[in-house]
Amino acid sequence: MKGFFQLISSMEFLTLLEGFGPLPSESIAIGDGLGRVLAADVVSPEQLPPFARSTMDGFAVRARDTFGCSESEPALLGIAGEIAMGAPGRSIVLEPGQCARIWTGGELPARADGVVMVEYTRQLDERTIEIFRPVAPGENVIRAGEDFTLREPVVAGGSRLRPQELGVLAGLGITDVRVHRRPRVAIISTGDELVGPEQQPGPGQIRDINSTTLASLVLEAGGMPACHGIVGDDLETMLSVCRRALAEADMVLLSGGSSVGRRDFTLQVLEGIEGSELLAHGVAIRPGKPTILARCGNRALFGLPGHVASAMVVFHLLVRPLLRRFSGLATDTGLVRIRALTDQPVPSAIGREEYVRVRLTPQPGAGDPLATPVYGRSGLLKPLVRADGLLVIGRDVEGLDAGAAAPVLLFP
Amino acid sequence: MKGFFQLISSMEFLTLLEGFGPLPSESIAIGDGLGRVLAADVVSPEQLPPFARSTMDGFAVRARDTFGCSESEPALLGIAGEIAMGAPGRSIVLEPGQCARIWTGGELPARADGVVMVEYTRQLDERTIEIFRPVAPGENVIRAGEDFTLREPVVAGGSRLRPQELGVLAGLGITDVRVHRRPRVAIISTGDELVGPEQQPGPGQIRDINSTTLASLVLEAGGMPACHGIVGDDLETMLSVCRRALAEADMVLLSGGSSVGRRDFTLQVLEGIEGSELLAHGVAIRPGKPTILARCGNRALFGLPGHVASAMVVFHLLVRPLLRRFSGLATDTGLVRIRALTDQPVPSAIGREEYVRVRLTPQPGAGDPLATPVYGRSGLLKPLVRADGLLVIGRDVEGLDAGAAAPVLLFP
Repeated sequence: MKGFFQLISSMEFLTLLEGFGPLPSESIAIGDGLGRVLAADVVSPEQLPPFARSTMDGFAVRARDTFGCSESEPALLGIAGEIAMGAPGRSIVLEPGQCARIWTGGELPARADGVVMVEYTRQLDERTIEIFRPVAPGENVIRAGEDFTLREPVVAGGSRLRPQELGVLAGLGITDVRVHRRPRVAIISTGDELVGPEQQPGPGQIRDINSTTLASLVLEAGGMPACHGIVGDDLETMLSVCRRALAEADMVLLSGGSSVGRRDFTLQVLEGIEGSELLAHGVAIRPGKPTILARCGNRALFGLPGHVASAMVVFHLLVRPLLRRFSGLATDTGLVRIRALTDQPVPSAIGREEYVRVRLTPQPGAGDPLATPVYGRSGLLKPLVRADGLLVIGRDVEGLDAGAAAPVLLFP
Repeated sequence: MKGFFQLISSMEFLTLLEGFGPLPSESIAIGDGLGRVLAADVVSPEQLPPFARSTMDGFAVRARDTFGCSESEPALLGIAGEIAMGAPGRSIVLEPGQCARIWTGGELPARADGVVMVEYTRQLDERTIEIFRPVAPGENVIRAGEDFTLREPVVAGGSRLRPQELGVLAGLGITDVRVHRRPRVAIISTGDELVGPEQQPGPGQIRDINSTTLASLVLEAGGMPACHGIVGDDLETMLSVCRRALAEADMVLLSGGSSVGRRDFTLQVLEGIEGSELLAHGVAIRPGKPTILARCGNRALFGLPGHVASAMVVFHLLVRPLLRRFSGLATDTGLVRIRALTDQPVPSAIGREEYVRVRLTPQPGAGDPLATPVYGRSGLLKPLVRADGLLVIGRDVEGLDAGAAAPVLLFP
């Protein structure tokens, strides 16, 4: 009897995903690293900056030579030279009473420990300046190694590489990094009624929407989609396409099967794969109840609802976390969660989490945005196009009053 | 006298950007469309769904034949046939008292106007069923064109294509779309002290961090970066590299020039480009004050601060909006703005907007996250790696008390 589900909660589902491991690592150039996830900690191979740098245009000094000076009693210093950008500053050695002209980013001369801003100086002649304000040792200077000392942790394994992390790696001379391989995701749309988007559907036929949508969702989540086309409702064909897909992928997304008959069919396919183990059949969320998860070693097979609106919710809540886990990130949706206020009562049902598509209207100032449900019958696409995210209603909540604060997961 | 700035506010700067126009459009396949921006409205070339579809497994009926039936007085209907998935349902014509077996997504037979869920039926023999619950006309049915009617607006020009929009386009048979061209962005790092990330810096030299960081920021914002390498502090060379870069790009990012001398230099370069017009020199934000903007027809030239930490802030606040405008989107940062609570007093200064790098700590429930400033001297990279976003402190605010609510722009 396969008509009934053994529902598990979305939390239980996420716990199941922790049985999968991150994908192996590969080495890539930092220029290709945006959004990739470090496979191991990176420690600094050298100190950064490599030398003490000025943070101002002015004069590098021995700070003690400026102590006590003022507008009325300026300090008089001899100019030992000028440090051109990129020139070795330490080739100049400051004797007591000496200073050197320096630019922002320049290397401090030997024995200098502070920089006086040019605004607080006056040049008397080619070889002498007056200084009107004292500087403390270290003032307007970044010490060698102040940013990163030798062998200091720079970016932790499991971090997603953002522009700033890539910049720091470049600054340390690290031009290649080990990151987790990107998940390869095979996408199969099933159904005798489906034709490709480029085809003209005959009577009773409809174009495949799920392949295009799921492929974009996978791309957006950092995976590499491979569409295996449309497969009719034939067990043997589905099994063979599914086996072929699994051989080249870390994850297979089978969609289609909104009807009870179809769902059984997807179950038969997933169970028919050699070495597969059924992990979940039914999740207490709405939409998305008839979700199926099977594993085959470290590979995952998902049976997704046939309606693209439901499939999208399941993707964000249950598939994205596994893609993130495969990529080396935390096993969560990775979606930005904000707080919003409902602009009308939103009914729900006890016993399942409800994810309501909402449109957000920003409010002036620091106020929370208003969330307006975008209702529409199951299977309609228009509400998807109009929505900004998913309002989350907990399992034990009967509904939300108008004006209630509730979390919204933003669509990426 | 170029040492002083004519500061404008960030709002005035954004108004200047409105003088630039979106880039011309090009036609692309929807499979390449993720994140691209529609150049014109798309209207539905046909109705969707193309026919009335069942949303349940069950029996298609003439609703009036079920009126008044109940558990105790079931309606008796003759089975006219079964509509296989993908088969032309309308080849069956329901006579009064007849029904047809149908699956979720199947085409309704002619003259049917409702579907009874299989759970509310009992099959008496091969040709007859009992029905226990009446259905209303339209129940469990999506009408032809209910999602989109012929020539109905589907996605508006200027919309960013998300997985759901791409899915809808596929469903309507629209496999190619016109989108704005992606902005091409030339990146030039300037400074005699710079060497490439793959090189070993000599005394007084330092590796170029900005090229890597800015290229990733451009990529992340949907642009196409082209790095033109490192150029020394030589006016003629910079002018010629800049001219060459401008010939192949919609935007040039010149970075370097944290010192007063360098800033003048960048200004000379931007002014030296034939047909260029200086639009802004100095913005009342911190960090980011010494930002320069020039235009040359519909092309933009930015002079960015030399410190990568400042350059990043300027990129997010002032460069991203123009990339978005070029791409056909609104002239804003496009960053997610959330509300956070400060965990300590955050000083600021009247007269400029302040953008403080903060780390966010989520709070249980629907509470706002806590924002902890990640301080560090100008020019340090570590605070960038530790920060999640930028706390915004308004121009007329002297600082924020501990526990104050303030907006945070999240790093993407």
